Amino acid sequence: MFHMSEFEIIERFFKKAHPNSKGDLALGIGDDAAIINVPEDSELVMSMDTLVSGVHFFEDASAENIAFKSLSVNLSDIAAMGASPRWISLALTLPEKDLGWIERFASSFNTLAEEHSLVLIGGDLTQGPLSITVQIHGVNPKGKSLRRSGANPGDVIYVSGNLGAAAYALKNIEGSILYPAATEKEIQQLHRPKARIKTGIALRDVATSCIDISDGLIADLQHILKASQVGAEIELSDIPYSDSLIKLKSELAIELALTGGDDYELCFTIPNSLSNTSLEEIAINCPITKIGFINNKNASLVLRKENEEVYFLKSKSYNHF
Amino acid sequence: MFHMSEFEIIERFFKKAHPNSKGDLALGIGDDAAIINVPEDSELVMSMDTLVSGVHFFEDASAENIAFKSLSVNLSDIAAMGASPRWISLALTLPEKDLGWIERFASSFNTLAEEHSLVLIGGDLTQGPLSITVQIHGVNPKGKSLRRSGANPGDVIYVSGNLGAAAYALKNIEGSILYPAATEKEIQQLHRPKARIKTGIALRDVATSCIDISDGLIADLQHILKASQVGAEIELSDIPYSDSLIKLKSELAIELALTGGDDYELCFTIPNSLSNTSLEEIAINCPITKIGFINNKNASLVLRKENEEVYFLKSKSYNHF
Repeated sequence: MFHMSEFEIIERFFKKAHPNSKGDLALGIGDDAAIINVPEDSELVMSMDTLVSGVHFFEDASAENIAFKSLSVNLSDIAAMGASPRWISLALTLPEKDLGWIERFASSFNTLAEEHSLVLIGGDLTQGPLSITVQIHGVNPKGKSLRRSGANPGDVIYVSGNLGAAAYALKNIEGSILYPAATEKEIQQLHRPKARIKTGIALRDVATSCIDISDGLIADLQHILKASQVGAEIELSDIPYSDSLIKLKSELAIELALTGGDDYELCFTIPNSLSNTSLEEIAINCPITKIGFINNKNASLVLRKENEEVYFLKSKSYNHF
Repeated sequence: MFHMSEFEIIERFFKKAHPNSKGDLALGIGDDAAIINVPEDSELVMSMDTLVSGVHFFEDASAENIAFKSLSVNLSDIAAMGASPRWISLALTLPEKDLGWIERFASSFNTLAEEHSLVLIGGDLTQGPLSITVQIHGVNPKGKSLRRSGANPGDVIYVSGNLGAAAYALKNIEGSILYPAATEKEIQQLHRPKARIKTGIALRDVATSCIDISDGLIADLQHILKASQVGAEIELSDIPYSDSLIKLKSELAIELALTGGDDYELCFTIPNSLSNTSLEEIAINCPITKIGFINNKNASLVLRKENEEVYFLKSKSYNHF
């Protein structure tokens, strides 16, 4: 360990050459601000998320997993808009200047960023309790961004991937449910959730609304219903439960899949008329599952069991605060 | 005190109607991301700063002052680029859901934002140790942003306002220097620094380089020298010392004014040929003072005393980390 200033740390671990930045990055890290030339036919899509140690990840989480998750949850917001991620700012607050930790964090962060051709354009490195805030900027052809507000009665509701994996892995790790053991894949879904960028882009021209599932399917679908002023009916037997939840087969499985949160899958609506060919194109990168439909019955959300009975949730959704 | 969710808090305290947002804000708070249409003739200027309790402000600082400073230090980066501030994202991490605190914070934050026609477009509200990250977005006519890299030999170096006020007020409050007592104005400069937005905009067409002084004049001027690959000479008797420092009249005054930091004044260079009329126009909103000139002597920075002797600094500049 040796002394490095904030500037030297940024220079060494975070400042990268970006030959592929297409000329629209006029000025990157190293001035009072970065300068971007947003392409004229594009709208700028921006989101910001914070992860706090002990709240959003375990205090003993690895630097690699913290970096991955802090970027991925932001990518997920861009995916929900159907946008292409482009530029990020990183505010990293660390209790101590542990260069080994910073190097592992930066390596994981940079790897995921490069995978998405994302350029780190600035940020801040400060001393304090461990916390990471990322601001992400994406672009979409003008007017093409997906919103929560476009769902229409008759639209079909889909989700990408499966639900409940992260919530189940968390229960397992915390020791409140020990059997069945969460699969390695489920544990990865908790620590290193995969943002559905390609699925979002494929939805850009066909979905009427979209959201990413961070607080649980029900809470997030309700944001779509509220913004679109519609209701919905969900078939519980159609939910793509994560593997361990299929084994669990209890009401707990339903509760975790619907309210557990931390899924970072997309929930979206598409017109019933969409062709199977179009659906197959959307599903190329990640499976999608039809789970219900939009109706206009006073904006209520009905969960239907296989026997047609209505199911009432026991648990409340995850609350950030 | 009563229960409010994250969404209700944002809705009640932070989401404002923005009739003046000029149509370029396509979508504000309330979706997975905000959408901006950056004007075609503009470049986007972006910066991010974090303030942590106990590091960047006292643990017992008022919600109003914390809000003001967290926004103002970001505005200052936009000022240094000569840009017009437009949109902000706010990541607010709070130990508890104290609605009174949040209301006072939001009121102060919103007031300063409105003063600059800034629109809050999104962010995150999370639970954890008190910390505030703001991402600010400004615009400039394409190619007009001020950078650190344009200073030329022969250019004159100026600073706005005065220097050392915040550093001196801090020494006073901490009790390490008790006399003279910091003035009310100096204490305000510590708690509620004023970003030099109008000065920055006035410099847009005339300055060759610019930076805001957050780490102390010397540290920040050295960023200009390094980026521009030039040297400089500063006349210590020309430094616009803050009132208490003029009374103090010791080497300590020089040290505080040059390395104390937290000034948020602008340090900039302009060609020696600039007319007095132009200089007066720049100084309309805030006094500016000539403190030295750029030379090309191997990029060294020389501090000259009144008797022509070279002065060597005793203290190091403020380090964020």
